[in-house]
This record gives sequence, structure tokens and C-alpha cells, in this order.
Amino acid sequence: MVTHNRRMANSRSGDSVLERVLRILEAFDTSAPSLTVGALARRADLPQATAYRLVDTMVRHGFLDRSFDGRIRPGLRLWELVTRCYPARDLHDAALPFLQDVQSVVEQHTQLAVLRDGEVLVLERLSSPHSVVNQASVAFRMGVHETSMGMAMLALSSQEAQERYLSEHKDADALFPGGLRRALAEVRARGYASLDGFQDAGTTGIAVPVLGRTKHAVAAIGVVVPTGTTPHAIIAVLRAAARGIARATDEDSASSFNEN
Amino acid sequence: MVTHNRRMANSRSGDSVLERVLRILEAFDTSAPSLTVGALARRADLPQATAYRLVDTMVRHGFLDRSFDGRIRPGLRLWELVTRCYPARDLHDAALPFLQDVQSVVEQHTQLAVLRDGEVLVLERLSSPHSVVNQASVAFRMGVHETSMGMAMLALSSQEAQERYLSEHKDADALFPGGLRRALAEVRARGYASLDGFQDAGTTGIAVPVLGRTKHAVAAIGVVVPTGTTPHAIIAVLRAAARGIARATDEDSASSFNEN
Repeated sequence: MVTHNRRMANSRSGDSVLERVLRILEAFDTSAPSLTVGALARRADLPQATAYRLVDTMVRHGFLDRSFDGRIRPGLRLWELVTRCYPARDLHDAALPFLQDVQSVVEQHTQLAVLRDGEVLVLERLSSPHSVVNQASVAFRMGVHETSMGMAMLALSSQEAQERYLSEHKDADALFPGGLRRALAEVRARGYASLDGFQDAGTTGIAVPVLGRTKHAVAAIGVVVPTGTTPHAIIAVLRAAARGIARATDEDSASSFNEN
Repeated sequence: MVTHNRRMANSRSGDSVLERVLRILEAFDTSAPSLTVGALARRADLPQATAYRLVDTMVRHGFLDRSFDGRIRPGLRLWELVTRCYPARDLHDAALPFLQDVQSVVEQHTQLAVLRDGEVLVLERLSSPHSVVNQASVAFRMGVHETSMGMAMLALSSQEAQERYLSEHKDADALFPGGLRRALAEVRARGYASLDGFQDAGTTGIAVPVLGRTKHAVAAIGVVVPTGTTPHAIIAVLRAAARGIARATDEDSASSFNEN
């Protein structure tokens, strides 16, 4: 997401500063949750002197935290400010009790996600110590046609959004017997999506859409179970939870960030 | 947290821009999770023209989201970047399965918190539809001596941190029979804190510290139950969970943000 199309410095609008702040925040990921300023400068493609100066400013304002050994992380103060009122919070808070119910019955990873920029963005994930391996993680993204949650949302998106996705992902056809369009039609007919081993071998994702008033998906909930698990009871539990979440969610706020 | 001690504009370091960005993010709270730009300008104490310009820039970079009706919220992209690697994430992720266990047994609000800037910062909160009323909410703060989680952490903080808190909160003595110092000694002797109705009438908070290697608190977990609930089983469940969280947490990362 780093943009190399740099604008001219414009201190009045703050454009250049915010672009650099964004590049610094984008430099962190699970493989590098904390960084030295030198490593941060390289990953954010900023001159060392610029990085040192900007990191100092960001630490001073709570955008970054500096630990005792000098390493830098995104700031707890920034987390606090954003988490209070981020756009998906109403949906997340409404969904959490239902996710707990699903997790306590299925006893495997239980997730909530939305579509964002043509990708699946994971909003919440509940696990158990004995859950199967799964790479999904809160605030990370996955491919739409590579996850059951993505398929559940895409199949219940507007015709326009589906056609756009199909035209941009012609390579996905090879992954589904009969192609992606037919796979989506099957998800729509069944009311759930099931994908074997796309994320991790030996695991199956099962997901259902959370439908808004227009009967398009505003989110999806899903579980990851060992491949071969009988899905019927799981699908029933997920469907009941999805209905509960839809009822508990203020749709106007939910549909304002899910892009379908 | 808004600083009115404004520095001179310094476009090289980005200080003035980040200060304004911070004031904009601080303007949102649960009573105003989304705002018009005009209201945002007033709450952030910024000239309208400055606010319009900066909001445009922040929306362009994903720091803010603008909904179809023009109202502004903190951005989902910013949430995503910060949530991936915020300093308390390791602690949060390690604690979540234990919080689920406690919540499924006690069936009342179950929370995880740390000390920050002399306040209790709530990191997670699991609830049930039939839980009692409680005002605590993820990413919000509460007073240390007004919450059982705060008392559990303060009582197990360093002598120095406790003395500093006691000298800065002499008014708290009137709230505890025998004073705050004695109340803290009791929490330490018992290993848990219990407070009736400080946050909401008819409710009791019960909390235990999560201890680090130095036997100081790195966090606290607590539940909110109807006043009069027999606490013994709850305390046993909380203690077992706190030990599990301590074992599952990388203490170096935990102790780097809890200030005690």
C-alpha cells in the first residue's frame, strides 16, 4: 500500500507529513511488530534523518511507542483513540457475544470479517488452545476467493460488485470446478461457503454471510475446522448467529464500510 | 489529553501537523463516534478552514473515513495498521482464551486492563446478553482506585509507584474505611480486589493481578457481578486464569507498556 507517487511537500495541507506517517505505520507487521529506527527508515523508504526526526515527533504525540531498548512500535495511545470509534466497532461489539456462542459450541477458530478494497479484512477471531492451525489474524487481510468468508460475502454482494470481481480475477476460475461464477452461484443457493485447505492443508473453512436489509452481505462469520468434519450442525449454528448479528447491528453503520 | 501549549509550526519535524491530527482523533468518543467537519473543528478547537483541509488529507490517507452523509469517523485503515502491532497485542492475544474461559463460567462481564498514565485502560471486555450493567468499554479509561482492576494492579505495583499514587490521591482516603493505603495492603494480603458499586450501583467488581517475573502486576483481569454474589469460586477461576495468562505472555513485551 506504500505509494511511491510522492506529492510535493505541502505543509499547509499536511499531505507530505501524513504520507510519511502512513508509510511508517505500514512498515510494521507480525514479522516485524517492533523495529529499530534504522530498520523502520529502510522499510518505509525514508532517509535516516527524516525517519529519526519524524519518529521523535510521533513518539511525542503517542502515534508510536519507544521501548526501553529503543525499538519502536505503533503507539498504545493511537490504538486507544482509533479503537474507541473505528467504523466497524458497532458491528464488532454486536457480533462478539454471538461469536463467543459459536466458538463455545464448535470449539474451533471463529471469525468475523468484512470486505475492504477487494480483500477480506478480519475484524475478530476467537480461538481455543486445541483449535486447528489457521493463519487468519485480527486486522489482517486475505484473498476473497481464497477464504470461505470471502466467498460467502462475494456471493451475496451486488451483481455489479460480483461482475467486477469476476472480471478482475479470471485466474481464479482454475481453482473451482466449473469456475468461480458457478462456485458463487452454489454458495448463494446453499446459503454458506465451504473451502478445503485454501489457507492451511487439512483444514476447512465454513462461513455464512451476515445480511443487511437489502439482502446483501454486510459481513461474514466463519469457522475453521479439521477437513472431514460433518458441517450440518456447524452451518446451523453459524446461520443462527448471523441472523442474531444482523438483528443486533445498526445496518446504516455496517453498510457504510463494507464495500459490496 | 489535548495540549493547549501549542508549539510553533514546524513543518520539518511535522510537529504542528501531528498535534492537529491528534486533536482531531481525540475529538471522537462514544457520545460522538462520528462528526460533521464543523462539529469536529469545534471539538478539536481548530479553525474551520484548517479542519476542512486537514480532514480531506486524513481521509485521503485512511486516517479518517467519510460516510455517504459526509460524517467523519476514525479510519478503518488506521485501525487496521495500529491493531496489527499495538504494544498490548501480545498480552491481549495471550489473554483472550483465558478471558473466554472465565466468561463462560462466570457468565458476567470479563475484562482485561493495564495501567497507563495513572489510569486503568481496558484492553478487552467479553459480555453476555444477561450480564449486569457496567460502563467499562474497550479502549476507555477508568480511575485506578475506583475499579477493582485498578486496585488489584496498584496493590501489586512497586512501592515507589504506590507512594506516588497515594501522595497524588489523598482525597481517595475518604472512600475506604481506614484509608487507601490500608485498602491496598488488604488487596495484597488477599490476592484479589473487590469493590462494591463504584462504577454502577448494585454491581461488584472482583479482580486479580496478572503478575510478571518480578511479582509486580503487568495487567489485571476482573469480572463485574451482581452485589451479593458469593466470590470464592469466582476468585479461584480468576486466579487460575491470571496464572495462565502470565505463563502465556512474553513478559518483556508486557512490562514495557504497563507503568508500575
